[in-house]
Amino acid sequence: MSLLDEPRSAELFAPSQRRSRTIDWQEPGPVARAASTMPGIEVMAAIRDGRLPPPPLAKLIGFKMAEVHPGRIVMRLDPEQSLENTVGMLHGAVAAALLDTAMGCAISTELPAGQGSVTMDLKLTYLRPLSVRSGTISAEGRVVKLGRQSSYTEDFVYDGGGKLAVHATATFAMIGAGPQHRSPPQDS
Amino acid sequence: MSLLDEPRSAELFAPSQRRSRTIDWQEPGPVARAASTMPGIEVMAAIRDGRLPPPPLAKLIGFKMAEVHPGRIVMRLDPEQSLENTVGMLHGAVAAALLDTAMGCAISTELPAGQGSVTMDLKLTYLRPLSVRSGTISAEGRVVKLGRQSSYTEDFVYDGGGKLAVHATATFAMIGAGPQHRSPPQDS
Amino acid sequence: MSLLDEPRSAELFAPSQRRSRTIDWQEPGPVARAASTMPGIEVMAAIRDGRLPPPPLAKLIGFKMAEVHPGRIVMRLDPEQSLENTVGMLHGAVAAALLDTAMGCAISTELPAGQGSVTMDLKLTYLRPLSVRSGTISAEGRVVKLGRQSSYTEDFVYDGGGKLAVHATATFAMIGAGPQHRSPPQDS
Amino acid sequence: MSLLDEPRSAELFAPSQRRSRTIDWQEPGPVARAASTMPGIEVMAAIRDGRLPPPPLAKLIGFKMAEVHPGRIVMRLDPEQSLENTVGMLHGAVAAALLDTAMGCAISTELPAGQGSVTMDLKLTYLRPLSVRSGTISAEGRVVKLGRQSSYTEDFVYDGGGKLAVHATATFAMIGAGPQHRSPPQDS
Repeated sequence: MSLLDEPRSAELFAPSQRRSRTIDWQEPGPVARAASTMPGIEVMAAIRDGRLPPPPLAKLIGFKMAEVHPGRIVMRLDPEQSLENTVGMLHGAVAAALLDTAMGCAISTELPAGQGSVTMDLKLTYLRPLSVRSGTISAEGRVVKLGRQSSYTEDFVYDGGGKLAVHATATFAMIGAGPQHRSPPQDS
Repeated sequence: MSLLDEPRSAELFAPSQRRSRTIDWQEPGPVARAASTMPGIEVMAAIRDGRLPPPPLAKLIGFKMAEVHPGRIVMRLDPEQSLENTVGMLHGAVAAALLDTAMGCAISTELPAGQGSVTMDLKLTYLRPLSVRSGTISAEGRVVKLGRQSSYTEDFVYDGGGKLAVHATATFAMIGAGPQHRSPPQDS
Repeated sequence: MSLLDEPRSAELFAPSQRRSRTIDWQEPGPVARAASTMPGIEVMAAIRDGRLPPPPLAKLIGFKMAEVHPGRIVMRLDPEQSLENTVGMLHGAVAAALLDTAMGCAISTELPAGQGSVTMDLKLTYLRPLSVRSGTISAEGRVVKLGRQSSYTEDFVYDGGGKLAVHATATFAMIGAGPQHRSPPQDS
Repeated sequence: MSLLDEPRSAELFAPSQRRSRTIDWQEPGPVARAASTMPGIEVMAAIRDGRLPPPPLAKLIGFKMAEVHPGRIVMRLDPEQSLENTVGMLHGAVAAALLDTAMGCAISTELPAGQGSVTMDLKLTYLRPLSVRSGTISAEGRVVKLGRQSSYTEDFVYDGGGKLAVHATATFAMIGAGPQHRSPPQDS
């Protein structure tokens, strides 16, 4: 027994209710290879300036690298409907995308060529809902402690009015090393 | 001074390296209004069965509601390139999207019409990298404790081979109530 | 089969290896009743100045309230051997005691008489080990967002040399209200 | 100006309101050296059986190792007043002490002699308050994933009536190695 009758269901799926969007991105493999020869802060600056393509997910979600500083990165997003959850707010994963990227890239700004990091754990606290009416959203990621085996970062996400919407902290495992040791993250 | 020369940059942006994908979704407003008159587990079953459209972000990321049980939801995803980060793995926000949704929907299965929840905090631990070669990814969200003001959930994300890839816990704030406020979720 | 032979075990339990310490505290019930009639910041100042007894656990662990500011509290600890774990470092729960207290008290400084908070969740990241050789440890808790139903705080724990040892964030549920429920904390 | 008058303050500090308790423990250094030659599960069994002294903090808080299994440890505590916070509940750090220990020891049960772990991050969610009226509290820590560089664990804390009071997850950095490499955790 369903409480959703057929006519209602048909109406919700009507073509008049359909929206669509085409996204495009650049093949990430060649980008990663080019980036692996550059110091992290150069890679970030090149993405910010449009000389290196951003990763596919950045195009999918629609966020951009806005500022690159040693140990600090700002990402920006102009939200739109495809990012909404069922109740018409931005899905929590949208902020997660911005801030995970901002924190990982903040670490990269401190690393030499060939080194990187992968997220080990991520804790988000949602303090204020975000929606398509929130204006341009920004996520500021900064390095709290850079380590040899792991690094710790935090991030503040603000809505367009400058109000704090999400706070996050994350620990990243450090991977790779100088030219002589470029192994992928081993699975422990 | 940049280490990325012009010819290299042009090559990375070459049309031959461009990929694209068109996503479509249904306008979420009417869906939310229809859903607000149904018990949560009916809404989830209707989305699973294709009688109610999923939220826009589910179409953007590409995940589907696969199983609906009282207090437990399974989401599934067949990953593809637009979900990748710079180094060709799935971006951490992809798992966040699946598991945040699975946990929030698991709470919904226990709620009467007109009630819902919003994520207060979310903690993810990444245990194994995911990629387009991971097979069908599944996220099982379950309610640990249902409360009147907040509820606590956990989620296990597995790769296609059944290996645990991500574990998450989340606290949700309980919101709304039907017009008659019929039987709020009991505080266990 | 045990690898720990009898003589070795006896030696480890020898009276010459025994240490002891007597702790004392004041019965907490009357303190809580007295405190319930005072604005939070007055309660904190009274504990800092020795006019109100600290809670029993503060005497057990040995930490003291050192600074009281609106929205910010500093706790201090001179560590000693009874706080050690098996490998001779301070047990992780020691920092947890300081910082959970500092954050909860930071919220109290913003609350009128009769209102308080309880910890909902607490996330600690250990960045540097602490020991009895760490000098005077300090934990600075501050309110990030004060809300009507929940509040969010963060805390930095430093060793005696001023190096960051632990970072923590916590969400507290807001409880109680004075008889007249005068001016609840505004939701910023 | 203080709202706490002198006579009231004197009364709260009256000898009739004073409680005290003497704790004792064994010097931890020799215990650590003895333990370093035994497989972790043997060390845990020896502590459980009273052949090895527990760490000082376990005596301070009053918890005991109750069960030792491969990958799983149960700690128990009979709470008493010195563990209380200002409002007469058990301080949040008490559960933190039990569960951090239980999880770290659960990892130890899987390790050979000379290896150990240190807490990197710890996330606790408080689901039900604990007090001296909660009966015997138990904390069950278990290994979710054992890794070479880090391991992931979870813990459920129950009150004496078997109700879930706290849930926690933690990541530990793996330290030490076989007899040939017994370096302390380097500070990154």
